[in-house]
Amino acid sequence: MRKSGVTVVVALSLGAVAGAALAQAKPEQLVRQRQAVMILQGKYFGPLAGMAQGKAPYNADIVRRNAAFLDNLSRMPWDAFDPATKDVKSNALPAVFEQQDKFKEAASRLENELHKLYEVSRSGDENAVKTQIGAVGKACGACHENFRQKQ
Amino acid sequence: MRKSGVTVVVALSLGAVAGAALAQAKPEQLVRQRQAVMILQGKYFGPLAGMAQGKAPYNADIVRRNAAFLDNLSRMPWDAFDPATKDVKSNALPAVFEQQDKFKEAASRLENELHKLYEVSRSGDENAVKTQIGAVGKACGACHENFRQKQ
Repeated sequence: MRKSGVTVVVALSLGAVAGAALAQAKPEQLVRQRQAVMILQGKYFGPLAGMAQGKAPYNADIVRRNAAFLDNLSRMPWDAFDPATKDVKSNALPAVFEQQDKFKEAASRLENELHKLYEVSRSGDENAVKTQIGAVGKACGACHENFRQKQ
Repeated sequence: MRKSGVTVVVALSLGAVAGAALAQAKPEQLVRQRQAVMILQGKYFGPLAGMAQGKAPYNADIVRRNAAFLDNLSRMPWDAFDPATKDVKSNALPAVFEQQDKFKEAASRLENELHKLYEVSRSGDENAVKTQIGAVGKACGACHENFRQKQ
């Protein structure tokens, strides 16, 4: 009986999750989703920036793990910058929606630089990794400069 | 001049990111980080649950992409369930901190089931994928049942 009870509960949860996902995502939910990606990009990029600046000891294992996470994370935020979210309070500037081509270019640049970081992190070349961490930082900064409210 | 100005701005941003990451993460920040992972797991698992339940058409490309994202995401939340966060308001039950072995077991189960989903999503066997989506749903549900406040 217990087993079957658990199965029912799980089936209901799966249904609830599916229902929520299949409904059109609300603008506020999209904003939470893209902010979630930015939080995690900060979590996994911060230590790499520290290593590149010599503020933390270089750790190739952490670099490899974080670079793989970041390579994935960099592809997650963009569909949540939907025009439907333009009136939701967030740090996104109107330029995100008004200059979509430029925004997509900045997004692609981040994806490309992080994919390169993923690849170079596999090479074990510490100097190349640090240079590429700098290139990623510039891609973050360029997008924030043009498309995010000053912090 | 402009180029050098941009470089300075970027260097400062990299320093700020590095500084924030190298400081001990505050409990509230850890909670935001783990909640961010849960939001994104919901974003990418929801559509798969819908496909497994026949509520949405099966799309092997989306399955492959989401399974890869989820395989990564499943490894991100756990270090943020630090004992330092036990008094921060969240949906985590005290059991997370009081039954750490059980919690780690539930966490590993999710990681394992999502890694299997990643592998099976590469096989192109729709039935095997749907079965494995169900196994992932059970791993989500089992952890929520024991370690998350009822929603």
